[in-house]
Amino acid sequence: MATPQNTSPLYNTIAVIGLGLIGSSVIRASQSNGLAGRIVAFDNNETVRATARKIGLGDEVVETAEDAVRDADLVILAIPVGAMASAVAGFAPALKSGAVVTDTGSTKASVVKDVSPSIPSGVHFLPSHPIAGTEYSGPEAGFATLFKDRYWIILPQGVDAEIVANFTQFLLGMGALVEDMTVEYHDRVLAITSHLPHLIAYTIVGTAFDFEQQVQNDVMKYSASGFRDFTRIAASDPVMWRDIFINNSDAVLEMLGRFNEDLSYLQRAIRWKEAEKLEDLFSRTRDIRSKIKDIGQLD
Amino acid sequence: MATPQNTSPLYNTIAVIGLGLIGSSVIRASQSNGLAGRIVAFDNNETVRATARKIGLGDEVVETAEDAVRDADLVILAIPVGAMASAVAGFAPALKSGAVVTDTGSTKASVVKDVSPSIPSGVHFLPSHPIAGTEYSGPEAGFATLFKDRYWIILPQGVDAEIVANFTQFLLGMGALVEDMTVEYHDRVLAITSHLPHLIAYTIVGTAFDFEQQVQNDVMKYSASGFRDFTRIAASDPVMWRDIFINNSDAVLEMLGRFNEDLSYLQRAIRWKEAEKLEDLFSRTRDIRSKIKDIGQLD
Repeated sequence: MATPQNTSPLYNTIAVIGLGLIGSSVIRASQSNGLAGRIVAFDNNETVRATARKIGLGDEVVETAEDAVRDADLVILAIPVGAMASAVAGFAPALKSGAVVTDTGSTKASVVKDVSPSIPSGVHFLPSHPIAGTEYSGPEAGFATLFKDRYWIILPQGVDAEIVANFTQFLLGMGALVEDMTVEYHDRVLAITSHLPHLIAYTIVGTAFDFEQQVQNDVMKYSASGFRDFTRIAASDPVMWRDIFINNSDAVLEMLGRFNEDLSYLQRAIRWKEAEKLEDLFSRTRDIRSKIKDIGQLD
Repeated sequence: MATPQNTSPLYNTIAVIGLGLIGSSVIRASQSNGLAGRIVAFDNNETVRATARKIGLGDEVVETAEDAVRDADLVILAIPVGAMASAVAGFAPALKSGAVVTDTGSTKASVVKDVSPSIPSGVHFLPSHPIAGTEYSGPEAGFATLFKDRYWIILPQGVDAEIVANFTQFLLGMGALVEDMTVEYHDRVLAITSHLPHLIAYTIVGTAFDFEQQVQNDVMKYSASGFRDFTRIAASDPVMWRDIFINNSDAVLEMLGRFNEDLSYLQRAIRWKEAEKLEDLFSRTRDIRSKIKDIGQLD
């Protein structure tokens, strides 16, 4: 067991709603860094709850979201963004005064719109988004270091500075790098860094599926030549991603429009064998990877 | 030094033309597996030749391609596909009778068309293509195990069975998995597994470059959310890839047409918030990664 880095927990009781990759990782990271006095866990899927109990996630896995949040000082929503509205509406009456509610959703305008109306007065809603993940899902996929050296974006929107500062300490305690930004800017940046790449990867892997069986087999055999990198992304959780595209459709469609223009430009250069145009673009995209390495975001 | 796995070399003299990632890896793999009596190396770039000498690539680094191939039983071309025609036309008169010439190009119809007319009678041209690589280039990027457990496609096209068998032993000796196919089929399969993914990755990384500086910085910061996987591919050698797209334009444009149709379908589903269509596609792309793992092509 890792040694707690804090002498006293930042929150007496934390409720984690949703026990997939993110929720289970939050629990493990909180526990191994001694960030919570007690962690109560809930998932609306009975099988997931059973697995969570079996592997000992949190101090208790309860049967309802209301029971999970009742004593919580911090409530963390780790569920698909399309499920936020009804989840919060359901458990909101059970929230105690002074509680902080955060989410981990990949779209922020939709979550703010869906969740804010249900937040009782005296409860603080502080949206956030960890930029971390793997292609695996479920309570057994989580691990304590998922957020280490990864950015966790917070969107304070007028929440009291003291509450923001305490939550920031919690995130830092899990090893995350914390940045704040506005909801609109978040949704635009994530559309290009995350949502568009996922859409493209899902598309190209889907395109490969429509070939005859022989080609499909050979696509897998020769996947090391580039295709393989797309399959990791295209193995991400389908429901989570369905919800992301539906809930950040404006920004995704804007980025897709830009991408399509650029792709058409290259397509035309290939058709007309305009070698220089191709080489120019391929040269300027080259050094971005070393820059990403420089800022510590390559594994 | 690794112990040679063969008691006698398969070729007395091997010439490697082009000392980038592939050429230098072929030399290292041949040496460490004892597959050649002697290896003569050449690159048309003087700086590359100097580096190759400094790091001791092959038994000798010579000043001309003619000198490299003069005594060679096997000539391996590891240069961009757009450079094949003039390279072979240049050294062909120096080839000895009975020599085998192979290439390592990523497009095969163009190489066959460009190289075949220059091959003297009595010399055997056996095109091939290793499905292996990294995003690094140059003579110092190569390593002896690059081809281990990776496919190396050969395209025999009527070359004598004995010559094919000997070359296959050479490839197996480097640890490669060997498959044969036709030129047309190769170019179509590689267009979807490799050329289209590279085009898409170059495009999306390029799209991110056209944003204002703040967004560009944030794209790098939050690249772990998907974008990062594309930057690895988009860091590949620009000249090599320029040549590939120019020389396999028909197959690439066909695959791009299919991809664009599929992307438009998803774009429309996002605009109209057709959640089921998105979830259906995202679900069926999920298991392809485990299949790739099953056939041993995940690192």
